[in-house]
Amino acid sequence: MISRERIDGSRDELRRELEEFLRMPSVSARAKGGDGFRGYAEWVRDRFREAGAEARLMETAGHPVVYAEIGTGDRTLLSYGHYDVQPPEPLNLWESEPFEPAVRGGSIYARGVADDKGDVMARIQALRLYIEEHGEPPFKLKFLIEGEEEVGSPNLEAFVHENRELLAADACLWEGSMKDEAGRPMIFCGTKGLAYVELRARGASHDLHSMYGGIAPNPAWRLVQALRTIKDEEGEITVDGINELIEAPSESDLEAIRNIPFDEAALRASWGVEALDRNLTGEDALKEMLLRPTANIAGIHSGYTGPGSKTIVPSEAFVKMDFRLVAGQSPGPVVELLRSHLRRRGFEDLEVVALHGVEAAKTPVDAPVVQTALETWKDVGQEEAVVYPTVGGSGPTSLIAHDLGIPTIMTGGIVNPESRIHAPNESARLEDYFEAVRYFARFFERFGDGG
Amino acid sequence: MISRERIDGSRDELRRELEEFLRMPSVSARAKGGDGFRGYAEWVRDRFREAGAEARLMETAGHPVVYAEIGTGDRTLLSYGHYDVQPPEPLNLWESEPFEPAVRGGSIYARGVADDKGDVMARIQALRLYIEEHGEPPFKLKFLIEGEEEVGSPNLEAFVHENRELLAADACLWEGSMKDEAGRPMIFCGTKGLAYVELRARGASHDLHSMYGGIAPNPAWRLVQALRTIKDEEGEITVDGINELIEAPSESDLEAIRNIPFDEAALRASWGVEALDRNLTGEDALKEMLLRPTANIAGIHSGYTGPGSKTIVPSEAFVKMDFRLVAGQSPGPVVELLRSHLRRRGFEDLEVVALHGVEAAKTPVDAPVVQTALETWKDVGQEEAVVYPTVGGSGPTSLIAHDLGIPTIMTGGIVNPESRIHAPNESARLEDYFEAVRYFARFFERFGDGG
Repeated sequence: MISRERIDGSRDELRRELEEFLRMPSVSARAKGGDGFRGYAEWVRDRFREAGAEARLMETAGHPVVYAEIGTGDRTLLSYGHYDVQPPEPLNLWESEPFEPAVRGGSIYARGVADDKGDVMARIQALRLYIEEHGEPPFKLKFLIEGEEEVGSPNLEAFVHENRELLAADACLWEGSMKDEAGRPMIFCGTKGLAYVELRARGASHDLHSMYGGIAPNPAWRLVQALRTIKDEEGEITVDGINELIEAPSESDLEAIRNIPFDEAALRASWGVEALDRNLTGEDALKEMLLRPTANIAGIHSGYTGPGSKTIVPSEAFVKMDFRLVAGQSPGPVVELLRSHLRRRGFEDLEVVALHGVEAAKTPVDAPVVQTALETWKDVGQEEAVVYPTVGGSGPTSLIAHDLGIPTIMTGGIVNPESRIHAPNESARLEDYFEAVRYFARFFERFGDGG
Repeated sequence: MISRERIDGSRDELRRELEEFLRMPSVSARAKGGDGFRGYAEWVRDRFREAGAEARLMETAGHPVVYAEIGTGDRTLLSYGHYDVQPPEPLNLWESEPFEPAVRGGSIYARGVADDKGDVMARIQALRLYIEEHGEPPFKLKFLIEGEEEVGSPNLEAFVHENRELLAADACLWEGSMKDEAGRPMIFCGTKGLAYVELRARGASHDLHSMYGGIAPNPAWRLVQALRTIKDEEGEITVDGINELIEAPSESDLEAIRNIPFDEAALRASWGVEALDRNLTGEDALKEMLLRPTANIAGIHSGYTGPGSKTIVPSEAFVKMDFRLVAGQSPGPVVELLRSHLRRRGFEDLEVVALHGVEAAKTPVDAPVVQTALETWKDVGQEEAVVYPTVGGSGPTSLIAHDLGIPTIMTGGIVNPESRIHAPNESARLEDYFEAVRYFARFFERFGDGG
């Protein structure tokens, strides 16, 4: 086992290398022509080579993917991360330069340090330390580092589907784990799916004087009437057939929920609300957030929305809804069920536009990789890591977990609640960073031991 | 009876006077300092004096009112009009200058000719012809001509309430009557009331990631849940107690509805819809439009309404609603009923903001003044004038009809369906104009005869 002393003795060197990575302005949102991106990818590739792995760039329709591999054996571990970052703007809110790392109060500040360069670098350094100590691992270790995560991974699906064999693995460590308010590492075992739809209603060809309010078709009322069939008065989703698709949570999922320390009062305070939706509390709230689908109104618009009182019957109305889906509910079938649900109730006139779909990704909380993650946290002195059945949100995790069927979790804990990812003054605690290097090295050891 | 020949012989003179009026750019929307307005009012006052009436300007907080009076007797007729006009913009769409009247195809084009200068001038000229023929009328004839109708009559309520005695009358001829598509004069016997409210819902203090969609209060859903208690699935208004306030339409109102020639297909075609709301047709549609209240959504907004799929739980939502009210339903009590309706159903968290209120104004369709209007139309050769119980919209008519309790109707028929009031190329047919002069002169004769 790689000792704490081994890492503590290399802190300056580890940090210098991370800082070199952080100085690269790899903002995918603005590098349309790929300016510099090949150089950033090559730098990452070279770190893998230095550590001892075989590494190469693989082309996509966008920025190249860095792929690295080392080791032999029956079992395979895949690691996913990204070398691109969010734009740093607004610049005036940064206390130090976004691409010139600065340490204050034990944290390192730079764009991308928490999301996701710290994570990527910690894993590479963990690999190097592992090889220095043990030589080649007795299992296959694969790294997929993309350069477009912050713009929605537009080319990842094609890449994953075209490289099924190459990416095949027994488990995957996804990016993006964090620690909670109390400093406990969080292990996430899945993401929800997503079906994002827009419902559009039309009335007259133009806005009408509201003297016709009693006889003119009103598309805003039409939407309200349709929405009332989507959720009932108690707020339960009532779209025909979509609840039937849900795969019931396992006893282990429910057990995991019971073990989550949930500071509901802190959540309510941070939102400034007196109660959660439908007065949910405790375990019920957690189950709802992590294991149940949602039918959320993300936006709605119709007619006159300026100041004062304009009297019209609007000519059109739309509502944007995101359905967060759980295992069993694929976005395609869910949208089809919604369509037929509305049709069956006479809402043929509503246009249902499917804007975006993501599959749910669910790894059992008692999968071996989760156990390995938990045990590894204990090895580095974190006795209270918490297992979450899902993270509540959605993401490209599903490409690996659902499409390739690889058990996928998020662990490692570089991000903390004050990390301000995607915002000015992004940071990570240096202690968390060095701990992560040790965590991943230890994880590789355990995985090599068959754990 | 003033002969058609008497008027035909004076056409040039009548039209020259109207054109002089039309050349005055009395745009109330932009004359903050009153530039020229006093002059316009004085010009109108002088026309009354020339005709033989006593006339004067009366001050308000805005533009002066022209008040004129003539005659003695037990009975009194009040006439309402306005000397201000809408802005002429956009100027490039006018085929001739907005303030330089031009005749094309039998119509006179100028800003204000249909709304409302033609109407005002026709009544003054009718008065002059009447006096030339008969001398002073054997009844009191009062004229109230304001200069702020096109900016919402902000000072009319105070004026009317302060001058109750002065304005007392047995009947009032309001401005704004028109002819229908088939050329039939329309007589309107009322306006609906209006209660304009905004319902506001709040969720968290800021938009949240929609991963919290299952547990975060969603103000857009909250509004939908409130709205579903305001109208049921059939589109019937279900606010506790507001239907009970409705004064049932009289048998004469229902009879009037049956006599209205309603070209439903033409209406649907002009709106580009296949059916009216709730598949209403014929008499049912007319009853709904003219005799029943509405609960119209004029606008609704919450969350993200741009392109694509942003996944948030919005922090706030609002809906703008106008309730068109019928006799018996005052806006104040209606808003209070709405508040208690929502409170009773647990929606104490919704803010109900009353933005605007107007009383309904209803004159019985068999009131003597309506009979006089109908008979007068027959006198000038229009056998098929149509009586409407209300006009469907709302307006300051209620200040006279409701607050002063004076039977008030709209008749005279200067406007036609192609008049484009408030738009470029406003026009009135010259034949309609000269007919209106004769109509009002004959109306005064009938009123003087006790009819």
